[in-house]
Amino acid sequence: MSWKRKHLLGLEGLSAEEIGVVLDTAESLKEINARPIKKVPTLRGRTVVLFFYEPSTRTKTSFDLACKRLSADAVALAPKTSSLTKGETLIDTAQTLQAMSPDLIVMRHSSSGAPHLLARHVNVSIINAGDGAHEHPTQALLDMLTIREKKGRVQGLEVAIIGDITHSRVARSNIIGLRTMGARVRVYGPPTLLPPHAATLGARVARSMDEAVEGADVVMMLRVQQERLHDVLFPSLREYSRLYGLGESHLRRAAEGVIVMHPGPINRGVEIAPQVADGPYSVILDQVANGVAVRMALLYLMIGAEGL
Amino acid sequence: MSWKRKHLLGLEGLSAEEIGVVLDTAESLKEINARPIKKVPTLRGRTVVLFFYEPSTRTKTSFDLACKRLSADAVALAPKTSSLTKGETLIDTAQTLQAMSPDLIVMRHSSSGAPHLLARHVNVSIINAGDGAHEHPTQALLDMLTIREKKGRVQGLEVAIIGDITHSRVARSNIIGLRTMGARVRVYGPPTLLPPHAATLGARVARSMDEAVEGADVVMMLRVQQERLHDVLFPSLREYSRLYGLGESHLRRAAEGVIVMHPGPINRGVEIAPQVADGPYSVILDQVANGVAVRMALLYLMIGAEGL
Amino acid sequence: MSWKRKHLLGLEGLSAEEIGVVLDTAESLKEINARPIKKVPTLRGRTVVLFFYEPSTRTKTSFDLACKRLSADAVALAPKTSSLTKGETLIDTAQTLQAMSPDLIVMRHSSSGAPHLLARHVNVSIINAGDGAHEHPTQALLDMLTIREKKGRVQGLEVAIIGDITHSRVARSNIIGLRTMGARVRVYGPPTLLPPHAATLGARVARSMDEAVEGADVVMMLRVQQERLHDVLFPSLREYSRLYGLGESHLRRAAEGVIVMHPGPINRGVEIAPQVADGPYSVILDQVANGVAVRMALLYLMIGAEGL
Repeated sequence: MSWKRKHLLGLEGLSAEEIGVVLDTAESLKEINARPIKKVPTLRGRTVVLFFYEPSTRTKTSFDLACKRLSADAVALAPKTSSLTKGETLIDTAQTLQAMSPDLIVMRHSSSGAPHLLARHVNVSIINAGDGAHEHPTQALLDMLTIREKKGRVQGLEVAIIGDITHSRVARSNIIGLRTMGARVRVYGPPTLLPPHAATLGARVARSMDEAVEGADVVMMLRVQQERLHDVLFPSLREYSRLYGLGESHLRRAAEGVIVMHPGPINRGVEIAPQVADGPYSVILDQVANGVAVRMALLYLMIGAEGL
Repeated sequence: MSWKRKHLLGLEGLSAEEIGVVLDTAESLKEINARPIKKVPTLRGRTVVLFFYEPSTRTKTSFDLACKRLSADAVALAPKTSSLTKGETLIDTAQTLQAMSPDLIVMRHSSSGAPHLLARHVNVSIINAGDGAHEHPTQALLDMLTIREKKGRVQGLEVAIIGDITHSRVARSNIIGLRTMGARVRVYGPPTLLPPHAATLGARVARSMDEAVEGADVVMMLRVQQERLHDVLFPSLREYSRLYGLGESHLRRAAEGVIVMHPGPINRGVEIAPQVADGPYSVILDQVANGVAVRMALLYLMIGAEGL
Repeated sequence: MSWKRKHLLGLEGLSAEEIGVVLDTAESLKEINARPIKKVPTLRGRTVVLFFYEPSTRTKTSFDLACKRLSADAVALAPKTSSLTKGETLIDTAQTLQAMSPDLIVMRHSSSGAPHLLARHVNVSIINAGDGAHEHPTQALLDMLTIREKKGRVQGLEVAIIGDITHSRVARSNIIGLRTMGARVRVYGPPTLLPPHAATLGARVARSMDEAVEGADVVMMLRVQQERLHDVLFPSLREYSRLYGLGESHLRRAAEGVIVMHPGPINRGVEIAPQVADGPYSVILDQVANGVAVRMALLYLMIGAEGL
């Protein structure tokens, strides 16, 4: 198994074969997390910089754990936003990091394209851990791993993604990845949060919750960003919940064996009813567990092979 | 030596035998901290999440060091309080953490009972590192280790605890633990900060500093939380110091060989006079050293035995 | 190779031989950073506390990496400034840290002399990672390593240091270190930011940019602290840049093979023109790489030899 990419900036441009290699590797590394001694020496002496603008996120913890499970050294760097307001300075920071000889930089940034800018100016592997409203490729990979695990395949499945499609890097990366793997995607959400590009990426826009869920094998709910609702003059969270929240009744229209996903953290009672989040179709915690496995796989494929 | 408890949520309910096992184990592990190479591979591949609402505390540093000395991987998570205002969300966060397969979660939270809530919803061992005004069991254990070391025993000793008894989790855990180990406890402090429950827990309420210190083998001073004084309309720090601060003159009334303790950080010249804090009866720095040893013991007893 | 100092509080008082040992050791350890497996077990089981008042700085990351490359355990402690306003409390904090048995404390503090205060009250080795406007010895050591690497020697070189000389611990440590190693130093900057002590330390004060750069083998630019400019009623950044910024035209007056240095992070277009920062004479990124090597050398010399 090998993977030729230096960076993982997004799922755009990745082939089904490449995605398959990541998922297969994650699947085989996953059992390490179930051992009493959850650690292998595979990446001993490799250095990974966790370059996150928000210091405390579950994605960062997931990467941190993935490093430790493979014995890589993780160094966290949480820059003050103030010192990085200009893209120019971001490049200087990246080159400074590079001079310290890390093997890989995991980066989260509020601006779309920030990891791509970095990749053009440093010679270190970069994983995009979320850039603005653009892509969040490791989230989509862990989602696909979870789907494959639960449904046996991704190809040919009907996947509904529901919520603020316009601003969601999770939605964007999933639409790209799922389409590449042969799934069909329909999206639904408030009209002001449904972009024209959904169509462009090959997703079908549903006209109601019922239509979105009808016959779906997978229903993926997106987290409501309350600030966003204000921006688009959405009346209230209660109103959002009534129109776009997933309840148990919706799931009766879905395909048999439907699974419900959410990237977390969930807003209980807003985009998802508590009994759905905790119900038997929910695979939300499987997603978290697969997050560590997918990140271990990427570290292994990107910095584990060469030089050993 | 073994310890059957999955969690350490408080000292309430622990037997003298159980406390004794922790203290014995701490005593035997303590010498690791005096070695040139302060590390043993005992917990290699175990993962401990340090889940602290206040990111930078000496308790967290103490746990972090305890992990490193035993080769466990420590992952720090400092959630923003904002995202965890509802107990419901706390459970979601805990279940998310659990899905990442840690072996143990060390948790500090401003709400009493938060670790107990967690323990009911996850299948991972939990150590309470301080929950609101409720319990701080590892502090009381390190205090008892220090007392046993300095006085040869805990049973039969006279222990005075002085300060804001009502809001102190340190006082509460110590009263419970010391009573279980056979010590007698008297408490003293401003009337508005002396709860009726002190009596309930089996501590005697003294009516003056002199009475509190009279014949005491151990004097434990509590840190003044300046915000609290305002709440109870206490006139000033100077007034507090005059009435409830420990000076050298008080110690003449204590038993011979009295030791003075403080959980730190101390307010010099408020609850404790500088010459007392730095004097020969002060064991404040021994407490800190024993803090690392007690936390190593708990990690060893709780996640070291099984599966190896 | 050995080094007898317990602490590194500043370059003041260090001999040329002592500085030479650090630079030689750094040079020999540097190749570890170029290996695929960037880690040696030299300091396994040693504990280093990173005691930084500013939690996220490149100096801290550099020390953190140096620890990991030598297998030492690094524990970060970022105290809230509020709890350490009095020097008295700083000593208590230091003694608390000491009680946890670290081998070395790396300290950054906004007050000049804070690490010296610590060194008088604890029995642990201390490295000053920057104290107020006083000294930043590891920065000057990495600068001298870079100069020696690029120019073959330090002795006899002409070094210009330009900017806010009064408040720069980088300037101060460099003047002391460079003079000790036999270089000649001239300084230049706004009159209100040029202290009389520059002369005292043996640096010559230039009267113009041209005079400062004339014949220089090394030009070291200091970072503009924008708050400082306000304090001294400096008109504007643009004005600063015009009068004291380094452009390509200045470098024509310098000696052949001049190198340009900056401790970072740079303010592009303020104290240094972008084409200079990125030009062939710039060794700014070499400085960063040498920073890790110099810190590895100090850790090795200070806590690596004894007890093994």
